[in-house]
Amino acid sequence: MTAGTVARSDWSGLAAALSPSAVVAVDEASRAAAANDRSGWVTTSSPDVVVRVGTVADVQEVLRFATATRTPVVTRGGGTGLAGGAVAAEGSLVLDVSGLTRIVDVRPDDAVAVVEPGVLTADLDRVVRAHGLRYAPDPASAAISTIGGNIATNAGGLRCVKYGVTRDAVLALDVVLADGTLLQTGQATVKGVAGYDLTSLLVGSEGTLGVIVGATLRLTAAPTLVATAAAFFYDLDAATAATLAVTRAGVRPSTLELVDGATLAAIDAAQGSDLATRGQAFVLVQTDGFAAEAELAVAAAELRRLGGQVQVTTDDAEAERLMSARRLALPSIERLGRVLIEDIAVPRSQLAEAVRGVAAIAKSTGVRIFTFAHAGDGNLHPIIAVASEDAGHLAAVDRAADAVFALALRLGGTVSGEHGVGLLKRGWLDAELGPRSRDLQHGIKAVFDPLNLLNPGKAL
Amino acid sequence: MTAGTVARSDWSGLAAALSPSAVVAVDEASRAAAANDRSGWVTTSSPDVVVRVGTVADVQEVLRFATATRTPVVTRGGGTGLAGGAVAAEGSLVLDVSGLTRIVDVRPDDAVAVVEPGVLTADLDRVVRAHGLRYAPDPASAAISTIGGNIATNAGGLRCVKYGVTRDAVLALDVVLADGTLLQTGQATVKGVAGYDLTSLLVGSEGTLGVIVGATLRLTAAPTLVATAAAFFYDLDAATAATLAVTRAGVRPSTLELVDGATLAAIDAAQGSDLATRGQAFVLVQTDGFAAEAELAVAAAELRRLGGQVQVTTDDAEAERLMSARRLALPSIERLGRVLIEDIAVPRSQLAEAVRGVAAIAKSTGVRIFTFAHAGDGNLHPIIAVASEDAGHLAAVDRAADAVFALALRLGGTVSGEHGVGLLKRGWLDAELGPRSRDLQHGIKAVFDPLNLLNPGKAL
Repeated sequence: MTAGTVARSDWSGLAAALSPSAVVAVDEASRAAAANDRSGWVTTSSPDVVVRVGTVADVQEVLRFATATRTPVVTRGGGTGLAGGAVAAEGSLVLDVSGLTRIVDVRPDDAVAVVEPGVLTADLDRVVRAHGLRYAPDPASAAISTIGGNIATNAGGLRCVKYGVTRDAVLALDVVLADGTLLQTGQATVKGVAGYDLTSLLVGSEGTLGVIVGATLRLTAAPTLVATAAAFFYDLDAATAATLAVTRAGVRPSTLELVDGATLAAIDAAQGSDLATRGQAFVLVQTDGFAAEAELAVAAAELRRLGGQVQVTTDDAEAERLMSARRLALPSIERLGRVLIEDIAVPRSQLAEAVRGVAAIAKSTGVRIFTFAHAGDGNLHPIIAVASEDAGHLAAVDRAADAVFALALRLGGTVSGEHGVGLLKRGWLDAELGPRSRDLQHGIKAVFDPLNLLNPGKAL
Repeated sequence: MTAGTVARSDWSGLAAALSPSAVVAVDEASRAAAANDRSGWVTTSSPDVVVRVGTVADVQEVLRFATATRTPVVTRGGGTGLAGGAVAAEGSLVLDVSGLTRIVDVRPDDAVAVVEPGVLTADLDRVVRAHGLRYAPDPASAAISTIGGNIATNAGGLRCVKYGVTRDAVLALDVVLADGTLLQTGQATVKGVAGYDLTSLLVGSEGTLGVIVGATLRLTAAPTLVATAAAFFYDLDAATAATLAVTRAGVRPSTLELVDGATLAAIDAAQGSDLATRGQAFVLVQTDGFAAEAELAVAAAELRRLGGQVQVTTDDAEAERLMSARRLALPSIERLGRVLIEDIAVPRSQLAEAVRGVAAIAKSTGVRIFTFAHAGDGNLHPIIAVASEDAGHLAAVDRAADAVFALALRLGGTVSGEHGVGLLKRGWLDAELGPRSRDLQHGIKAVFDPLNLLNPGKAL
């Protein structure tokens, strides 16, 4: 197909070129359902068509069609993104790869899995457990988000503090380029230095460089033991100091989380618990592996030394109970109404300053902000509550969000630790990266996608 | 400066623009000394000039000069590369950054160090030990290679199997681009997803995209305990099986090495030891951290189960003795004369097949090949001995090297696990990457370096 020979709205012609399992949907419900993700971004339009592919060859066919007709393509997995990366506007084609769900291969001796992009992250983890292995990255959305989406956004999670982010787990990719060519990047080996690292470049590129249709992922040994400590602190500064003390003591926690007092109160309001009576901050530490108990003992001693009321367990059910103060944080806050989920990261040493700064922003703008954090990574999620749709309040919410971003940059951090840039953070990207970096990134984009058809207007 | 206004050989003009600590050398000895690295590549010429810079501003000035005069620039650190990446031919300017040796900052709470590129890798590790921290990547050259060179080649080492390669330790870079602009990439935070991952792109790019003038590096807690097991096997296949069994048992070794019988005999010949009487293969396992002894016990049991004669220790001096069979491998083989140091990597499960394949190549070509391996990473170093400079023998050596590369690719591996492409592996790069990947990489190169002045002809 070449430009001009195919009508842009020839959806039936496209459908005829695809595999029998592919679905080309132009009904309003399908288009509306594919217009948004979970970012809270409000779209006023929807894509022209949604193509749910059944094979990799379908993806290639769709991209050849898009190139021939100059149609913008928004690739979509689980639709669970938090930055607007999968938001699709009028004039665009949504390429839905969530039907590519094969776990192609699990190679226990290599500690590697080969998967299609529509595999749910939690499903992969479950399947490899049968081999004594684990897929370490664990975004909160793991049960509903796809591996392809995780890779496209370089998703994080609780276990990153020990096992790294999604990028650290991706050894090789199969990618369909804008013109329909299938490209393989990376190596099936754990080490390899042949050529530029296109794999890392594609991870986190939010569908702007190519469409991920396969991934070779690094697995790690599933730990035989997990130990958990939960601690309440009367003082937030003591709690943040305790999170630093844990890593300074040489412990490598598999989880190191902080929850502030406002969030504890929100959980109490939603769940009928009494967490806020126990302290103004909550710290959760998990260790795993051969030394889980020995490491946790060191961590617990640090928590106590800094004034924490500490509970420790190696029992799974009890651990789940202790973790609930972290797991219930976001759902409880969301009961209050619409929220903006922020995602800044700062150097670990600046965590206390960041938490205090967010509280000050809440006070000065009169907006409620709840903060919990992957403390071990310096990655904070200030959750801004939108109390009403009143214009004055919405302006205050905007001021609060901008102040949070400015705070992150002032402390030497980033406007997005793990959720991505999408549409939401684009305004702040230049402030973080500067014009020369932006120019290079646009140059790379043009090398991969000269017609600017892949998720245009996102990520950069 | 603009093209045409500056004479290409106006070295005194360049010198006048640099800081007092910079040295511009055009004498034959300086130029000859900067023509080669440790790859064994034989150059027939030398660069026109060697500029040893004293400041980052000097680097910018040199690159502005290079752009104005269209002079190719070969950046040089310790000159210890093994792939020819720093080989500099007639017509080129060597930019020697080995004088930029400041450790700018060590931030223990963030577990981060900020360094200049000329810092020796072992020096950084030594300095951060005072803070209870460690710089994990440990190429064999650590005492003589620079951080900048390690980053440019994405250097590996023994501890990669647990702690990752150099790329995993690089959080942010300061880079001077071809036109003299100073670019910052990455974040000082351990997580960050704002923009494409230019940092990973620059790591391993062998001086072809920019000149690294600063790096923010991730540190890890220095382990309080290291446990070591050394095992001799009468059967090479049993030894490779044992290395797989160790990781399958859930152990995360910090070192997992294999040495073949030919190498043991070479060590005996050079050192007067009797290793080869103890077995046909040697396996070294180290574990570290809180569970070092418990993990090592599991590893040692696996080694014994597969027929290994095992010795175990947690004593440093004794560990050094046990490790000597690995540490002395290369120096002992090099006593035999000129060698080609190969660096293939295969999926771990293919390690036995790879070792057998190399032995078969040695037999069929009549060339002596000694193999040792970072077994836990599937990264083999087959060392090809060049017995004479006789044309027939050199042809056989070439056949052997080509067969080793072909073997790596046939087993799903790569032609370079950790040394880089430089000049030596370029011929095999296309076979591994394919034409589309090559085109994308050249496109990226053109975005960063449109005049193709930075280490032209290398890496791609």
